[in-house]
Amino acid sequence: MTTRESDLLRHIYERSGGMPPRVRIGPGDDCALLAGLAPGALLTIDQFVEGRHYHADWPVDLIARNAVGRALSDIAAMGGRPSAALAAASLSTHADRHPAPPDALFDRMAYWTRHWQCPLIGGDIAFVDGPSVLSVVIVGSPHASRGAVRRNGARAGDALYLTGAIGEAKAAGWKRPVEPRLEQGAWLCDALGDRLHAMIDLSDGLGRDGGRMSEASGARLVIDAGALPLAEGVADWREAIGAGDDYELLFACAGEPPPSPAPGSVSITRIGAVEAGAGCVVRTPEGEETDAAALGWDHTDEPGA
Amino acid sequence: MTTRESDLLRHIYERSGGMPPRVRIGPGDDCALLAGLAPGALLTIDQFVEGRHYHADWPVDLIARNAVGRALSDIAAMGGRPSAALAAASLSTHADRHPAPPDALFDRMAYWTRHWQCPLIGGDIAFVDGPSVLSVVIVGSPHASRGAVRRNGARAGDALYLTGAIGEAKAAGWKRPVEPRLEQGAWLCDALGDRLHAMIDLSDGLGRDGGRMSEASGARLVIDAGALPLAEGVADWREAIGAGDDYELLFACAGEPPPSPAPGSVSITRIGAVEAGAGCVVRTPEGEETDAAALGWDHTDEPGA
Repeated sequence: MTTRESDLLRHIYERSGGMPPRVRIGPGDDCALLAGLAPGALLTIDQFVEGRHYHADWPVDLIARNAVGRALSDIAAMGGRPSAALAAASLSTHADRHPAPPDALFDRMAYWTRHWQCPLIGGDIAFVDGPSVLSVVIVGSPHASRGAVRRNGARAGDALYLTGAIGEAKAAGWKRPVEPRLEQGAWLCDALGDRLHAMIDLSDGLGRDGGRMSEASGARLVIDAGALPLAEGVADWREAIGAGDDYELLFACAGEPPPSPAPGSVSITRIGAVEAGAGCVVRTPEGEETDAAALGWDHTDEPGA
Repeated sequence: MTTRESDLLRHIYERSGGMPPRVRIGPGDDCALLAGLAPGALLTIDQFVEGRHYHADWPVDLIARNAVGRALSDIAAMGGRPSAALAAASLSTHADRHPAPPDALFDRMAYWTRHWQCPLIGGDIAFVDGPSVLSVVIVGSPHASRGAVRRNGARAGDALYLTGAIGEAKAAGWKRPVEPRLEQGAWLCDALGDRLHAMIDLSDGLGRDGGRMSEASGARLVIDAGALPLAEGVADWREAIGAGDDYELLFACAGEPPPSPAPGSVSITRIGAVEAGAGCVVRTPEGEETDAAALGWDHTDEPGA
């Protein structure tokens, strides 16, 4: 491997296609400088691991897109607007575990960060005798009037809603383009304002992420199994509720239902209600209740899987 | 491996020991929210790779410190003040390549980020069948009056200075605590203001990093071999100039020499001058010139080394 980090950074900078004015210093110096972040910056970091989240034989464009898209989903879940991105790659020294030449990989990551209006303003690269790992950082701004939408605000009496459908990623063997719900998250802030009590993105499955909202909010989430919108190819809600990587938004809202569909013709479906108590359960039409959190998954549950 | 990411994040949050008011949302939600970043945020990401930058048998405290300290050196090199940190860990599933239990590792990273006034406000964890990689992101503020000090401002007529001595990391077999020159970088901004034309930290050796300043500035850097301050145990300047990981600051300054020592009794040594032209050379007392950049190293030169 003869690619040098310095060459790579120059390459990225040359291909950056211009930076918006808020990027005062782009790639190529010790740090990137980003202006205009008042009143605050949203920050998130996410790792995309070969053999876990993707396979090296996927098209490099899809690998790059999903590495960026997954991190952006966290910004969407706060109702925020992305502003800039950093990316660090630990690339495998084994050709068959290597997504692409570094230049091509960073080119595609730069493409997708521009696509989502958050230019890649910094990065790092290393080579490892193991699987490749792409770490993506997104800096963003909270919604101007609603502020950042946390996961801890669900209250008894709220209704629970979901964008899109669940189980799609699993049905596709996880090899499908991630579409972070950025526009929809911001639109929900516009439309609902302070009635939008809590929001989270589904990275580890509705079951586990619903459990997280429940725990953070100190409230009970009751999901109506019969109401769940299932992606094509998904036979049963039990299959979908435990499947990760859907990147839809789960939110709790008081009062009138939100308008539907959201921008991009994304459906908004009422899937349950918030009650006093604890836990996140799925209630079948027959009235049986199952602990939903136990049906979710955690990326770290099965190392090496 | 039964550690779950959600448990780990909760653990980090519980041990965080309180967050400063600027951290509006700390670990535990989809994103962290950081206030008070106007007029701009410095952002940097750095990877710390087992087998390359450290070995798994080092004390976990030293691994954590150096992972954080190396990233902070980039903030120091801009004259900035650190504000917050994010950390992502890809931890080896092989016990002997694993720095420590995740809790212990993140505890120590949280300790060192607090030590340097940039609390850990977010993170991610994964497990990999390969070496462990720690990715650290630092968000900081540029110096209030001087602004961010770039590497591209060196001009003919400037003198070149260095904090501390070079070759220390190599002499110690790289197993020594990294000390980012944060206080010194900010103090140089205070003391020199706009006379501080350019600054860079020595991560890949004075030779290569000097070459970077030269290239960015479009000027020739001439280093006086006889003036170079060498760390204890370093016999020859040729050995020190090509050795990485020193994390001292190289800067170009116009007019009067800066005061010395810098805070912390860190020496400031004049090591050369900026001339018109290109390249970074070392001039011996005998008048011989050697291309300094060719003596530096790049972490990506020797994958797997």
